[in-house]
Amino acid sequence: MGMRSEDYHNLLDNSEVYRREPYMKAFSIVDRYLECFSKYYHLGLEVGEKIKDFIPSRIVYLGIGGSAIAGDFINIITEEVPVIVHRDYMVFRSNPDDLIIAVSYSGDTAEIFPTLLKNLELNRRMIMITSDGRLRKLAEKMNFPSIILEPGIPPRYAFPHTLGALLGLIQSLGIKIETLSGSIVETGKIKENFVPETPTAKNLAKKSASRIVGMLPIVYGYGKAVPIAYRLKCQLNENSKIFSHFCEVPEAFHNDVEILNEKTVLLAPRLSNEPNEIDEVYRALSSFLRENYIELKVPAGNFLSEILSLLILVDYISLYAAILRNVDPLALYVIPKLKDNNRNYQEILKNVDERLGKI
Amino acid sequence: MGMRSEDYHNLLDNSEVYRREPYMKAFSIVDRYLECFSKYYHLGLEVGEKIKDFIPSRIVYLGIGGSAIAGDFINIITEEVPVIVHRDYMVFRSNPDDLIIAVSYSGDTAEIFPTLLKNLELNRRMIMITSDGRLRKLAEKMNFPSIILEPGIPPRYAFPHTLGALLGLIQSLGIKIETLSGSIVETGKIKENFVPETPTAKNLAKKSASRIVGMLPIVYGYGKAVPIAYRLKCQLNENSKIFSHFCEVPEAFHNDVEILNEKTVLLAPRLSNEPNEIDEVYRALSSFLRENYIELKVPAGNFLSEILSLLILVDYISLYAAILRNVDPLALYVIPKLKDNNRNYQEILKNVDERLGKI
Repeated sequence: MGMRSEDYHNLLDNSEVYRREPYMKAFSIVDRYLECFSKYYHLGLEVGEKIKDFIPSRIVYLGIGGSAIAGDFINIITEEVPVIVHRDYMVFRSNPDDLIIAVSYSGDTAEIFPTLLKNLELNRRMIMITSDGRLRKLAEKMNFPSIILEPGIPPRYAFPHTLGALLGLIQSLGIKIETLSGSIVETGKIKENFVPETPTAKNLAKKSASRIVGMLPIVYGYGKAVPIAYRLKCQLNENSKIFSHFCEVPEAFHNDVEILNEKTVLLAPRLSNEPNEIDEVYRALSSFLRENYIELKVPAGNFLSEILSLLILVDYISLYAAILRNVDPLALYVIPKLKDNNRNYQEILKNVDERLGKI
Repeated sequence: MGMRSEDYHNLLDNSEVYRREPYMKAFSIVDRYLECFSKYYHLGLEVGEKIKDFIPSRIVYLGIGGSAIAGDFINIITEEVPVIVHRDYMVFRSNPDDLIIAVSYSGDTAEIFPTLLKNLELNRRMIMITSDGRLRKLAEKMNFPSIILEPGIPPRYAFPHTLGALLGLIQSLGIKIETLSGSIVETGKIKENFVPETPTAKNLAKKSASRIVGMLPIVYGYGKAVPIAYRLKCQLNENSKIFSHFCEVPEAFHNDVEILNEKTVLLAPRLSNEPNEIDEVYRALSSFLRENYIELKVPAGNFLSEILSLLILVDYISLYAAILRNVDPLALYVIPKLKDNNRNYQEILKNVDERLGKI
């Protein structure tokens, strides 16, 4: 009954697989990762010009799920301005010198609207990133600077678009980040190691996927690698439909590790500038777990290339795991059911509609 | 082969079980929960008197694992002073008007020392909470105000001691918290519902334990219930040796819920003052998961009783689950092995010894 690792490799190295839907579409979106990132980075630069005269003391980032993680990355890419990522229905109390960035791919994410409507009353500076829905309507009616994302893809696949847009935005506000041009070229080369055409023997993404199927994958992250680890956990949940667990290091060393066993496999996204203390934590884990420890590390010339390469690697792992588990990486089953079942969700969106009617 | 739910109930309602070690010892510690909490609360009040003239602008809390969670509770119990819980080797940059609270039951937790030694140089105000080891030696040599915890119990079981000590400390610093006297009496009554003498039919702790054994338990928490949810996840890991996963609501609704299935069981510690939006999130989860949704809610007269009762409930669940899984709730296997295997751990402690030699 069970497939062996060799069978996994044969399956992932068979080019036929990638000509079948839904895999063909999923891979074609991830293939365009850097292209989309660059496109929206330039759009972000343009839109940021419109509020260039305003230097925010904080960025209040409204988003949840896949949209929220992009906000976490701004926090690790620049330390010049603090970014508060607000993942809640409760109204966040903003200050007059805050910049509000509201992000929802669908434009209809209920959680962001209570804070958004409150800040509308307060006349705060705002920027919207969305493809459609009420958020887009609001941006248009109020003439807010906004970045409109390409339609027709599952929201979590619009992550490079959102991240690019955000980096462009903050750069045009005069907030320093590493230069992008070299990073894109370098990341493009690294990405080739993870594409379907690269055989499993040389492909860290395929190898990793083969080792997590049928297991309990756990992702540990440290410091600036934390949002990468969290993104991997979410992509395994949503794309691969696999139970996956996430924890931060070194905290995990004091409780979570107690349940590591022969069924768990640990994925560790690593950055090259981690302190020696953290190297030792992972070395201890590796010597304890042996083949159940998978280190995700990419050689890259700068921090931005490293992050982008790891993010692309993460997406490919989730797609290969989806193939091996024979599931649809584009579809979701539980999340939409629960949203429909949430009366409050409908209630909040009705309030937004009323408000939109009055503008 | 498999046990039925009826067998679980019979086992948990058999008083013989609780006369056997290691269960007898584990239950006897948890039985003293409120007694220890009160004792160390009064000790905390006394020790706090020694630095009463100093009103800190922030509390920098150094701890990790079970010790760190107690710090998280200070943040939810009072909003008067921000508490930064630092769970890392990296040195935290403190200000002159910060109060450093260093917590380690063993006194030899490597992670806290780099920041501690740095702050020693800076002559910052400090308080130590420990039972032994290098932290105790340091407190004695430097004559720092300190709270010495009872020896001989596994560190995670010293949680009520630490939490009590912390509440006493911050109250004597003039930071407002809810009055304790009534809460202790009320919590004592609620606790009776969870003890071994209360049969499963009326015992939420036993019922919950029976439903998670053989399953993948997931804990979701919102707002002030987050550290309770996280404590439950850790206690299931360490006491019950069961894989357990934790996530925050409403974020979990946007990715984590996708993997809820017939093997997962959701535990939801709830507080009575949660907003309507969050009630709806849990209502949707409950109607979707049906018998795989377990709500942990206790009727209590005030916020502090509610938190303490839930924390005690959490501990009992983990002990009953340990019985049903036939594991030792006092022992740990992986954590000590990994610590021994961490060369950096030894390196840091050697540095502390050198420093202690010079004082």
